[in-house]
Order: sequence, then C-alpha cells, then structure tokens
Amino acid sequence: MPTLNEVATRAGVTPATVSNVLRNKGRVGEATRQRVLEAIAALGYRPHLPARALAEGRAPTIALMVSSIANPFYPEFALAVENALRRRGQFLIICNTEGDPQTGRAYLDQIAGTLSEGVLVMNANLDFEDLRMTELRGAPVVLCMWERPLDPPGLPCVAVDFRLAGELAAKHLLELGHRRIGAIVGSKVYGIHAARYEGFVDAMRGAGLECAAAPVLYTPDTTRGGYAAALELLKAHPDLTALFTTNDLPALGAMQAAADLGLDVPRDLSVVGITDIQLARESRPALTTVAVPTTEAAEFAVELLVDLIETTASRAASDGARQARVCVTSPPHLVVRASTGPVRKR
Amino acid sequence: MPTLNEVATRAGVTPATVSNVLRNKGRVGEATRQRVLEAIAALGYRPHLPARALAEGRAPTIALMVSSIANPFYPEFALAVENALRRRGQFLIICNTEGDPQTGRAYLDQIAGTLSEGVLVMNANLDFEDLRMTELRGAPVVLCMWERPLDPPGLPCVAVDFRLAGELAAKHLLELGHRRIGAIVGSKVYGIHAARYEGFVDAMRGAGLECAAAPVLYTPDTTRGGYAAALELLKAHPDLTALFTTNDLPALGAMQAAADLGLDVPRDLSVVGITDIQLARESRPALTTVAVPTTEAAEFAVELLVDLIETTASRAASDGARQARVCVTSPPHLVVRASTGPVRKR
Repeated sequence: MPTLNEVATRAGVTPATVSNVLRNKGRVGEATRQRVLEAIAALGYRPHLPARALAEGRAPTIALMVSSIANPFYPEFALAVENALRRRGQFLIICNTEGDPQTGRAYLDQIAGTLSEGVLVMNANLDFEDLRMTELRGAPVVLCMWERPLDPPGLPCVAVDFRLAGELAAKHLLELGHRRIGAIVGSKVYGIHAARYEGFVDAMRGAGLECAAAPVLYTPDTTRGGYAAALELLKAHPDLTALFTTNDLPALGAMQAAADLGLDVPRDLSVVGITDIQLARESRPALTTVAVPTTEAAEFAVELLVDLIETTASRAASDGARQARVCVTSPPHLVVRASTGPVRKR
Repeated sequence: MPTLNEVATRAGVTPATVSNVLRNKGRVGEATRQRVLEAIAALGYRPHLPARALAEGRAPTIALMVSSIANPFYPEFALAVENALRRRGQFLIICNTEGDPQTGRAYLDQIAGTLSEGVLVMNANLDFEDLRMTELRGAPVVLCMWERPLDPPGLPCVAVDFRLAGELAAKHLLELGHRRIGAIVGSKVYGIHAARYEGFVDAMRGAGLECAAAPVLYTPDTTRGGYAAALELLKAHPDLTALFTTNDLPALGAMQAAADLGLDVPRDLSVVGITDIQLARESRPALTTVAVPTTEAAEFAVELLVDLIETTASRAASDGARQARVCVTSPPHLVVRASTGPVRKR
C-alpha cells in the first residue's frame, strides 16, 4: 500500500500538508489541495483509520455488549444499532459475553476507550462497578433497555416501561374473560423481568383477583425454558385457560408445550408474550404480544452515547459528577394476533 | 487516562522501555520490567490499541460481511467466528450489506486494510472485482461458505459440498417411498442455491425419475418466500407427497403453508430442509434437514484468513500471483426429525 510520504513526494508537498488535506484542517491553497488529491487518486492511497483516529484522539467504533447473539432479539437490536451508527459513519463491534461477567470485563478492559470510544450494554450481565470503571477511564457507557424508567440505574440509559408491557398483556387476557392465568417469568425472581411480572400482578389486582390465584414459574429466557415451564404449569393446574409470559421466546415454547399436550391455541389456551420479535409474527398460530419500540431504543441509545462521547471529549476527565441521563422511549403497545381468544366455557 | 509518559516517569525509565515491556520486545532487565509493571498497575494505564496496532502495522479486528444479520443463520455463524477470533485475541466487526453491492463496496473501502486487517465474506452479494481490489490493497479476503468445492471462485474460500447436501435430502425422501416431490429453491435459477438443487436432480435421476416430473419454484430465501412457494406448488400439484427445500427458512415456511391447507406434516406431506439452524430443532414438528458443519466452516475461515494475513504481511505487496486456497469442510449429513415420514398410501 502506498504511504503518506509517497503521496507527499508525488504531490511535491510535505507529509503534514497531505495530512491537512485528508483531515480538512489547516490552510491549504486550492491548487495544492488538487495536487494532493490527484496524487492520492493516482497512487490509490487510503488514510489509515487507526492512525487518523489516533491523531484525532478518537476511535472509530462503538462496542455493543450482548449476552448472546444467538438469542434472536439481539441481532434485531444490533441491526437497528448498526443502521443508526452507519448513518454517522461509525462501525459496530459486537461482543458476546455469553452472560459471563468475567468475559464482559475482559472485553471492557481490552476495547473500551481504545478500539471503541463508547459502549452500549444490552442485558450482558455485567457488573455495574466494571461499567463505572469503564466510564471513569473515559469511555462512556449506555444501558440500552433499562426496564424501570422510574428507578434509574445511576448509569446513562435508555428506559422502556416494561411494567406497562406486563400490564397491557395481562389486561388483554382479562378482557377476553380469562381468570385462571398462569405466569411464566424468563428470569430469576428479582431478575431483569421482574418489572414485567409486576405489571401482570398490578393488572390482576386491578381486576379484583388474588395474586396467589395465579401460579408462577421462573425459567431461563429461552424457547426450551418456556416449554418446560408451560408443561409443568399446565399439568399442575389443568384449569388454566391462559398463560402470560414475560418474553416472546418462552411464549413460543409455551405454545409448543400446549400442542404436545393436545391443547388447541387459542381455543383451549391463550398465550401472550412481550417484545414482538420476528418469530412472533412468523409462528403458527402467530403470537399475540406487547411490542416494545426496539428501533427507537436503538436510535436513542446511539444518540445518547454519541452525545456523551462528545461531552466527555470536551471536559476534564475528573469531572465525573454529572447526573446520569435517562432517555425514556415511547410506551409499548399490544399487538393482537392468533394466539389469544375468548375464554372457553367449560 | 494516564499516558505512557507518566508510566515512564513513575518507573524512572524511558517511554521506549515501557513500550518494549508492553510488547514483550527489546532487552529489558527483570528488575526494570517489574518497576514498569508496578507503575502500570499503580496508574491503571492501558495500552492504546489503535496506537499499538499502528506501531506494529496491524489492525486489531476482522470484518465479517453478511447480507443480513436478521437471517437467523448469520448470527449463528457470526457467533462461531467470534469464538474462534476471541481465542486469538481478535475482535469481530459485523457489516450488514443488506444484499446491496454498493453498501458492501462502501464497507470494503472504509475498513478493509485500515480498521480491519482481513475480511470474511458470507453471501453478501459482493462484486468479485471489489473483493479482488480489496486483496490487492493488502487486506486478505476469504469467502466463508462457497457452495461448489470442485469449482473454486479464484478467491480463497472455505467450501462446503452443498450439491451433496441436496442429494442427501432427496435420497432421504426417495427412500421413504416418495415419488411426487416438489422443489423450492431459495435463490434465483443460477443463484447461490443452484448446487443444492443439482444434488436433488442427481438423486431423482439416480432413482430413474424424470426431472420434469418434479415441479420447482424459485423464491426468496425466507420463511415467507417458502410459505408462498409451498402454497402455490401444493395448490397446482395436489398429488405432491413431499417438498424438498434448499434451506431451512423456506422449509419452515412450507410447513406453515401445509398447516394452513389442513395438511398434516409428515402424514400428508414430508418436508426437508438444508443447514440445520436452531429453529429447525425448535419447530413443531421438528424439521428433518441436512446439517452443514457451520462451526467447522467458521474455524476454517478464521484459520485461513489469519494465515493469509501473516503471509501478506511477510511478502511484497506486488506478489499477488499465488494460487487462491480452497479449504473443504467435512461433508454435510442428514438429521432425521419429525417432518418426514413414509409416503402415504392413497
């Protein structure tokens, strides 16, 4: 590859002048600029991005930390982030933590503030202390889908009202006449889906139903987890007419369990999820779900991060006392498809 | 963030010595090395990766060009590539071309040889000329899943015998007694799935069946594409007892079409796919498919690319006449699940 020096020699200028032309900086006469551009074209020279980033004190990528790119929601979110970044001329590095805080820490140590100038975090099971250290070392961090807008995490975040999502899903089942509703929660009891389940509980109480009347199981946030939980719930409580699940993947698993038990969805059993991933639209029956604004959240997260990067660059590194910003997306909304129907008279 | 100079001052050495310790180069006495490491730890200094990459003439990432990260096969492949790269201490940049050669060209121009030291290409619909230009400018390119091992593309590639995959899928249907088999091809007539369809045709001929006896439709490589094609085939040819599809997504769509037509899979209709994505295991009925060695292909691709990067670095850039290497994976194999069964007597 031709070097900057070769371009300079061919154009009859100094390397600093070539650099100024490339970066649109300094004072360069139009005739000189043209000679440099012609030399660049003739030699096929391309500026070295890490070098340019280094010269400008910036790295040209953003890192997205996800717990598993194999969960179909994350590629959908990553695609939306990538589209938003591309419009700004930046690139995305996707880092899989596989839900392991140590792997996450290794990524943060190796790329934050060096290869990537900022970090987006999506349910990657990272230690908040590690994230604060990353911030202190100059690489802003944004949590991409914080589930509790009213209870911010002390780190910049994009928040989605997931309690409302749970409430909307439960209200839909209640309006269809269901009263015996089982709940499948795709996290631990105080895990990331807790707010979604609280919304369900609120709706049940609002309808005058005892929470104890609704059996609940906590399970991994996968199709398989939802399948196993649904089998267990439906065998233990054959009078259930509907299942509320805190995410689409377990909901899809619950529909498979119903099929394996000979139950027709929605005639014998209604199933509702949360998120609206592509599979929810494609499953048979298509899944009724509460859609969250994925693309909007991705765009907000990129905007917030870029803003923080620019702010950080223009302030002293020690000025870390500013308030962590919270961006709330538009509310989730119910999407009725074929997996829910009126309660069956028995 | 602390600088290299601050580390040097604290350790009482020159910046060059700190750099040598960081890069394990030059002669540094053990006592000096310890002082430098202690200063690094005390200050929380981290080497600046772009700077280090620049000093060593290397970029620290690999780019993976895919046509759409939203197609569930690509995240599975990307995950396998990322695992292989992580073991080598390298990072993955995922570039979505959305099937558009111009977007692909923009990515290649901006990152190949600068931000990324090599490029993996997965069905990204890129111009081969653009890829050869990328190679000439010093960034090696590897095609990740070339479908015809006996007909190499003139670029380094990992090849999978997809003709054999098609043949195995068709033979499975023939052995179950099927004779009226429709074919759904997830690409254009001379598109990337042509080799898979040739395998199907070979197997049909081997069984003494006329190819003309098997209706075929070409369709987008999506669930929706497979759904529409299956509806059309099954309506036009109600005597079909099996569908061969060149990929799992259209096969899953074909199963949905069968359900919507009131056909039971596999009692009324057998359906077989190719690839073995996670959804094939999770669908109901689970999809019989021909599994391709995805993880092996990802590992071969990374090995080949890293090898080419090292070779390129140690040779003159003008030495471009070497033969493009072809790595062939182990053969695909049939995975029988619930979507295929013996032909029904009518």
